[in-house]
Amino acid sequence: MYDVIIVGGGAAGLSAAIYTTRRALNTLVLAKEIGGQTATALNVENYPGVPHVDGQSLMENFKTQAQEFGAKLECDSVARIDKNGNGFIVVCQSDQSYKTRSIILAFGKTHRTLEVPGEKEFIGKGVVYCATCDAPLFANKDVAVIGGGNTAADAALLLANIANKVYLIHRRDKFRAEDILQERIQKESKIELVLNSVIEKIQGADFVDSIVIKNINTQEVSELNVQGVFVEIGYQVKTDFIKQLIKLNSIGEIIIDQLGQTSMPGIFAAGDVTTIPFKQTVISAGQGAIAALSAYGYLNDLSVSKLDKNNK
Amino acid sequence: MYDVIIVGGGAAGLSAAIYTTRRALNTLVLAKEIGGQTATALNVENYPGVPHVDGQSLMENFKTQAQEFGAKLECDSVARIDKNGNGFIVVCQSDQSYKTRSIILAFGKTHRTLEVPGEKEFIGKGVVYCATCDAPLFANKDVAVIGGGNTAADAALLLANIANKVYLIHRRDKFRAEDILQERIQKESKIELVLNSVIEKIQGADFVDSIVIKNINTQEVSELNVQGVFVEIGYQVKTDFIKQLIKLNSIGEIIIDQLGQTSMPGIFAAGDVTTIPFKQTVISAGQGAIAALSAYGYLNDLSVSKLDKNNK
Repeated sequence: MYDVIIVGGGAAGLSAAIYTTRRALNTLVLAKEIGGQTATALNVENYPGVPHVDGQSLMENFKTQAQEFGAKLECDSVARIDKNGNGFIVVCQSDQSYKTRSIILAFGKTHRTLEVPGEKEFIGKGVVYCATCDAPLFANKDVAVIGGGNTAADAALLLANIANKVYLIHRRDKFRAEDILQERIQKESKIELVLNSVIEKIQGADFVDSIVIKNINTQEVSELNVQGVFVEIGYQVKTDFIKQLIKLNSIGEIIIDQLGQTSMPGIFAAGDVTTIPFKQTVISAGQGAIAALSAYGYLNDLSVSKLDKNNK
Repeated sequence: MYDVIIVGGGAAGLSAAIYTTRRALNTLVLAKEIGGQTATALNVENYPGVPHVDGQSLMENFKTQAQEFGAKLECDSVARIDKNGNGFIVVCQSDQSYKTRSIILAFGKTHRTLEVPGEKEFIGKGVVYCATCDAPLFANKDVAVIGGGNTAADAALLLANIANKVYLIHRRDKFRAEDILQERIQKESKIELVLNSVIEKIQGADFVDSIVIKNINTQEVSELNVQGVFVEIGYQVKTDFIKQLIKLNSIGEIIIDQLGQTSMPGIFAAGDVTTIPFKQTVISAGQGAIAALSAYGYLNDLSVSKLDKNNK
């Protein structure tokens, strides 16, 4: 019987593990991979306190700390969570199951990928999935942003302040982005709209140097010289397996309060899998710590709703 | 005219500055001191990604990052904040004033005082509020640490390496400190627990030489010969100067929502000064990033209430 099982091994999950173990909670981390989204970033510049680090090394440190304080890590995916008296049973895809008194869900989300040649090859070498994280690496360079929603528009506007030239490539003739973003994009001379177009291929030597795009109306194929490809076509959360147990929002994210509590007592959540809209390593780490301290309060019958009491 | 003025130079304020400057917002940080509470910690073990660092070095890194991305730092305290059209005027204690379009409040909290005879008189003469800063002055001396939380436990453990004898005095019969710290305290032969006891008086000639303590169960009064009194009884927030502008809770903390928004549009808050009950460096850093990205959304007329929309 564990005090807490943490599902997910990214910034939120490992930060939670550091905090639960320092509170002497018997902690198991279940994750298929350690490091989460952060581990895929070539260069992390915006994690406060750690200037210029690669994502992999940063997450290795998270892991080392969690293990030093006593967290147990198992490489497994969770298939099902069942109520079990006051606690829970976590059933893994391997069929192994674990009993626990509480759970912290921190298994993140997966970004949608383009599925075109060159994409995988140039990850971290020009292909970017997080504009907020990596835009500053493209100062005075030419870049393409792929997508038509708010995050794509947001990325294009952000890059217009930093890069030399921004191609905003969208498969339709209209954007889904908020009007105000669209208006601003029209005013930005650095942003060139490439509508009705899809990306076919990403190419380069060691790093991206161009992309091949196709106009889906005319079928015309052309090449654009860019050093960066910002893939902003959204992401997905895979929360179907717990939707019977806890409340999700309309896009499948886990609804939490300010203390990381879900709708089910004893289950907490943190990081990209939750309703917090900004997906950043330090935000996930902070939320992981909050969920851990809330879980500690729950297990010790402390009033974790101190927040609400003071606010009245 | 600044895009954003950040009031406070600790983990929350500097993390916010890293994120606002990376979004190309013209940012001024106003703080009397850089580093906040974290900078006073001799050894930080629980900041994810950075195993074993002294607080001062950790916060120097925060500061370096913020400055590298373009944040301007001014050493000043804020006396008043006034509305000014759609923005604000921030008036400093130096009488210097600054115009800004938005504000992030992240000025943390100040340590509580004992309010007993002799306390004020012996400040800097044996009465200490920062164990990290002043512990080395008490090599081979006898000292008392007052308090029952993590900072008190941390101070006692630190002093056990330096002083001759450490009395850890707490008004209750149980500590609130993390279990891992409590275990370490039990193993330290130099630390003597004095429970259910309060300090009544601090006495001495030029410097502290003893304290009077009272057992609150037996009412018994006794004297301990100590040359140092380490006050570690928590903190208070000093938010009086903004209570006309934004909503505070019953203990003066700034009420924020999950996006770091206060009750006044354009003013955001993060870190120890807010209603988030857990006061930890990584939590403050995460909240600082959230406030910064919310401020960016506000300044660009974006829908920062994306959260609520998806939750319906």
